[in-house]
Amino acid sequence: MISQTVFDTSRILSLKGVTHVVLSPGSRNAPLTISFSRNPDIKIYNIVDERSAGFIALGMAQKLRQPVVLCCTSGTSLLNYAPAIAEAWYQQIPLIVISADRPPEWQGQRDGQTIHQVGALANFVKETFELPAQTEHEDLAWEYSRKLNEAVNLSTQLPQGPVHINIPFREPFYPQPNDQLTFSDHPWVISPHYSELSPDFSSLAEAWQHFDKRLIVPGQQPLTPELNEALGRLTGEAVVVGDVISNISGQAAIRHHDLFLASVEGKLAESLQPDLLVTFGRSVISKNLKIFLRKNPPKEHWHIDEAMVSADPFQSMSKLIQAKPERFLAAMADSKGDLSDFSFQIRKNFAQNWAVEDSKGERRLTESFENMKFSEFSAFAKVIKLLPDSTDLHVANSMPVRYVNFIQGLPKGTEVFANRGTSGIDGTNGTAVGGSLVSNRLTVLLTGDLSFFYDRNAFFHHYDLRQLVLIVFNNGGGGIFRLIPGPSALPELQQHFETRHTHSARFTAMEYGFDYYQAKDAAGVEKAMKSIVKKGKTPRLLEIFTDPETNNEVFAQVKKAFTS
Amino acid sequence: MISQTVFDTSRILSLKGVTHVVLSPGSRNAPLTISFSRNPDIKIYNIVDERSAGFIALGMAQKLRQPVVLCCTSGTSLLNYAPAIAEAWYQQIPLIVISADRPPEWQGQRDGQTIHQVGALANFVKETFELPAQTEHEDLAWEYSRKLNEAVNLSTQLPQGPVHINIPFREPFYPQPNDQLTFSDHPWVISPHYSELSPDFSSLAEAWQHFDKRLIVPGQQPLTPELNEALGRLTGEAVVVGDVISNISGQAAIRHHDLFLASVEGKLAESLQPDLLVTFGRSVISKNLKIFLRKNPPKEHWHIDEAMVSADPFQSMSKLIQAKPERFLAAMADSKGDLSDFSFQIRKNFAQNWAVEDSKGERRLTESFENMKFSEFSAFAKVIKLLPDSTDLHVANSMPVRYVNFIQGLPKGTEVFANRGTSGIDGTNGTAVGGSLVSNRLTVLLTGDLSFFYDRNAFFHHYDLRQLVLIVFNNGGGGIFRLIPGPSALPELQQHFETRHTHSARFTAMEYGFDYYQAKDAAGVEKAMKSIVKKGKTPRLLEIFTDPETNNEVFAQVKKAFTS
Repeated sequence: MISQTVFDTSRILSLKGVTHVVLSPGSRNAPLTISFSRNPDIKIYNIVDERSAGFIALGMAQKLRQPVVLCCTSGTSLLNYAPAIAEAWYQQIPLIVISADRPPEWQGQRDGQTIHQVGALANFVKETFELPAQTEHEDLAWEYSRKLNEAVNLSTQLPQGPVHINIPFREPFYPQPNDQLTFSDHPWVISPHYSELSPDFSSLAEAWQHFDKRLIVPGQQPLTPELNEALGRLTGEAVVVGDVISNISGQAAIRHHDLFLASVEGKLAESLQPDLLVTFGRSVISKNLKIFLRKNPPKEHWHIDEAMVSADPFQSMSKLIQAKPERFLAAMADSKGDLSDFSFQIRKNFAQNWAVEDSKGERRLTESFENMKFSEFSAFAKVIKLLPDSTDLHVANSMPVRYVNFIQGLPKGTEVFANRGTSGIDGTNGTAVGGSLVSNRLTVLLTGDLSFFYDRNAFFHHYDLRQLVLIVFNNGGGGIFRLIPGPSALPELQQHFETRHTHSARFTAMEYGFDYYQAKDAAGVEKAMKSIVKKGKTPRLLEIFTDPETNNEVFAQVKKAFTS
Repeated sequence: MISQTVFDTSRILSLKGVTHVVLSPGSRNAPLTISFSRNPDIKIYNIVDERSAGFIALGMAQKLRQPVVLCCTSGTSLLNYAPAIAEAWYQQIPLIVISADRPPEWQGQRDGQTIHQVGALANFVKETFELPAQTEHEDLAWEYSRKLNEAVNLSTQLPQGPVHINIPFREPFYPQPNDQLTFSDHPWVISPHYSELSPDFSSLAEAWQHFDKRLIVPGQQPLTPELNEALGRLTGEAVVVGDVISNISGQAAIRHHDLFLASVEGKLAESLQPDLLVTFGRSVISKNLKIFLRKNPPKEHWHIDEAMVSADPFQSMSKLIQAKPERFLAAMADSKGDLSDFSFQIRKNFAQNWAVEDSKGERRLTESFENMKFSEFSAFAKVIKLLPDSTDLHVANSMPVRYVNFIQGLPKGTEVFANRGTSGIDGTNGTAVGGSLVSNRLTVLLTGDLSFFYDRNAFFHHYDLRQLVLIVFNNGGGGIFRLIPGPSALPELQQHFETRHTHSARFTAMEYGFDYYQAKDAAGVEKAMKSIVKKGKTPRLLEIFTDPETNNEVFAQVKKAFTS
């Protein structure tokens, strides 16, 4: 028997704006499965491997910008969500995890699939909601529906993030064939009514005028037209540094910082040191930028965050400002003080100092590409050049996101997604799959071989992935360990760091029925790129093989060009 | 720089009996990787996917019966261990999880791969040990080595189980090329000295004499000759019920309980109801046995557990006895009271009542096999019949372990392994791989298609699996949902429960270079079995295709034979 309260679960969720549910099959969660499947306002995706399911839901919530539900049975299924939930936590993405459980009296009694579920995700969710096992008593029905409401409200409250709802069920889990399961007309909904902030920027605008060397560093954030517009109005007023995950590719910005800041010292460093650093958004990729700013700190560092989440990766924060970044930036753009010639000159010089380094960086990079051997570096550049406009671009961790940030030059309208909350390699396929399933644009994933194999179960389902293109850069192992200074000198390199292998993504493509392309040189990449970006009947997978030693050699040459 | 204290990590572990380390590559854990790789007493296995790595370590520790180390870098890698750690917790297997971490001051600062690691596994480890980030101060060096000792000691103390050691590292992680890294001759080791229990069984032996209807139900446990011998001495004194995971296949025992107890009621149930139930070991598979004993409870239920872990799956526990089960059983066998004719007759009748039902069960099962259509049921029976003696048999959850428990009849010297701590489908391949890597016997895995695909990354490495045989029962989805009563009647069956698919394990076999066999009928199974149990140059994978509708029909026929 499924009580009315339990059957109404999906109805409350859909009335609160949930439209997508990623479900993993099980018996204990059958009452929820039935509630979801009979709700016409809910789209269900059945995913067997809960780790991939977690990342698929993450990719959906990231793209939809609304909460997505994950639902699993009792036991370790819940634990397989943990990597995606941690990523959602650090990226502030609302995921609603619903796990079915045995009732509490059966904990620790060696009955099947009974584990300590309550608190299992505690490190990475805003709250764990324990729902009652029985809802016959009206107080318990009230508790059940109330907590369901609270959980969804909490997940969408700033800073957004994942929540965990644990629901114990007693047998039987299945309705009788002639049970009437109909949703209540008006199940209990608690709607949050949020209020806009009304910040007073006057003192900040005044202070802003006193800084001439202003540097703006946006962290990871979705593509937001209002923010890009506000940033655009500050052109000439401040230097903007643009990591690819900040999604400000439409803006005039410094792009080659991650390359040229590696070798900046002395007078040059001084000439680039800001007085005021303004940051917003989440993480920054460029390690060289972080090191540069830690060594050459600004006089003040203002971080703008509507939810007042405090994080200080540059070790210099002096103000934490509660505001939407676009509103703050617009206010600064509106504030025009009397500008002395002296200040004018300093601002101009500061902007020019950065611009000169950036152009030199661009020139060096362009020169590096001439006569560059075919390698990961050249292949990434070629792929980026041949990407169509208006693509959802997912970039895997480890080397791919670094290459893309080095090379830059993304086509118009690209939105970049990357799991930079935790920077793991464990769910890139799933995130791209989730994004693609809810996007009407082409989704392209740039990934390494290990990331690709790690999450290959993300494709184990029948949902429509015709708008998905997978580009796997196969260097036969964890190539990053050859490229970073420490491990490359060690006798343990090949065996214990790179984990060299000879696997190809071809078999995975065959199993899943993907169109498979491979390339081992520039011409091959160019030819394949033309085919794979066209809409097909199935996902296209391009595997680009490179040689780790050559990758290392080329990478060293590029680095040398930027340090000599 | 790697401090002497940190470099000695592997030396302390190996002096404390650790010989096997499952390592996943990373930069943050490089100091540990180097310590392990330069220790000749340690065997390292590099596994990329940490979820599979966790289960491989579990399989090793289960087979070796000693602690195995898992070591990963910072970030979500640790979270991928969680399913295996939960399984280890409920199976009481000592795993030592060592995660590298950022130092605490960088928590929450949006730096790469920094997550709340401390406490992330808290629900499933005996303790989380936080080690110091620096060991220059001698008190901190003392803390580091002391906690390392404490962690290993705790994992092997009864009840054994997993522990988590979190070690923060500050850069640099890599030694300089001319650093002298040599182990200390006498690093600090705290050796536990355990004492044997000296139980007084006299009052129990006296009480034992007062019960005539004695039922012994061993739960999951490893194959233990002493225990089997003690059980053997009780033949005729007590009825023993033998689930396959209790590893008492050498004993005279009731084997068909999971079939015939389904329909036992009234007078018949009364005739099988015990006065005294004796249990030991961990979980029991047979749901029908559990239901029967809950409905027909014994007058007393004694559970024997050296570590006094209390769990009461039969809802009848009256004594929790601190002793090794084999010593308790031997003491009961030694105790001979004066037996009245009346008691003698009751005991004989009770034994006979069970024996009659068991023989009837065996006959019904044998009859069911005559003219049985080719199906999972018949294929499992055929495979079991053709298994060689002295095999390490890994059985996956969901249907495989149920089929094996229905069919019984395992060859001599078989040891059965199954992840019955949490009963998940998420790590069966890894557990079998880990077992096989440290066993000198043939390891055979019987698994379903979904379990197989779920953990296919368990094979992503180069280690020697020539003694491994994989038998995949492919029914195109989660066949269990068609076989259990609730979901089979639902319109949601195919889409939301079974998750039907047309995948074959063939591509996985091709990618990994396994010898691949397939069978679609009894003759095919018979032919393939002869080849695959012979030692080869690579693992053998036999995929047995069955039709879910036929499986359902056959299963219903067998059930009917036992209920009519």
